[in-house]
Amino acid sequence: MTAAPHVPVNLADRLSRFSDLWSQKTVAGVNDYEVKIAKLKGEFVWHRHEDTDELFLVISGRLTIRLRDGDVVLEPGELFVVPRGAEHCPVADEETAILLLEPAGTLNTGDAGGPLTKAAEPLD
Amino acid sequence: MTAAPHVPVNLADRLSRFSDLWSQKTVAGVNDYEVKIAKLKGEFVWHRHEDTDELFLVISGRLTIRLRDGDVVLEPGELFVVPRGAEHCPVADEETAILLLEPAGTLNTGDAGGPLTKAAEPLD
Repeated sequence: MTAAPHVPVNLADRLSRFSDLWSQKTVAGVNDYEVKIAKLKGEFVWHRHEDTDELFLVISGRLTIRLRDGDVVLEPGELFVVPRGAEHCPVADEETAILLLEPAGTLNTGDAGGPLTKAAEPLD
Repeated sequence: MTAAPHVPVNLADRLSRFSDLWSQKTVAGVNDYEVKIAKLKGEFVWHRHEDTDELFLVISGRLTIRLRDGDVVLEPGELFVVPRGAEHCPVADEETAILLLEPAGTLNTGDAGGPLTKAAEPLD
């Protein structure tokens, strides 16, 4: 699952290789952290990650992260870190591509579980 | 140094706030990792980070990362992770803006030291 040496990860290229929504694809590792990309549309589930912060960077589209005390809206080129333990619910009115960073093994639905729970998949 | 709650980090805006080269500015934290931005032009020094991988993502411009067994060239929207222990030397022929991710406290010149050594600075 590791890219060949000395070949950069082109995010646009990687995004062109899949179309399923709310499915995180691992594109790189930094120590025990994973860099993941995903395509979102619609509303996810409220959840929290008890043990980790979670970074969202919007590549294209527009992402609203609902938090219990207000929303944050991310345009392309904007990032936001949801603090550990903070309940949040990602919502995208249009199809939105994001980059995520968090420790390897962090589940997409955090403490909530349910049918949308899915482990990140490698994307070579 | 922490941004106000629910305000995203706009990378273009943050990049407009400084002009010094080879000076890392911290824009977010993820657990004990730092997200930093920097502007590069010219050639840095060969160095290595014995204890950590280092992620480079090019925002604008073009970055060559020289490695002992070959170069990797990053265009905007491309990322590369230099493995821990690997000697590398960043080079930018034109002014280039990058995002970096690595554990907090990682020094820019790694094991090399020297006059270009500079701790990351917060950028609110």
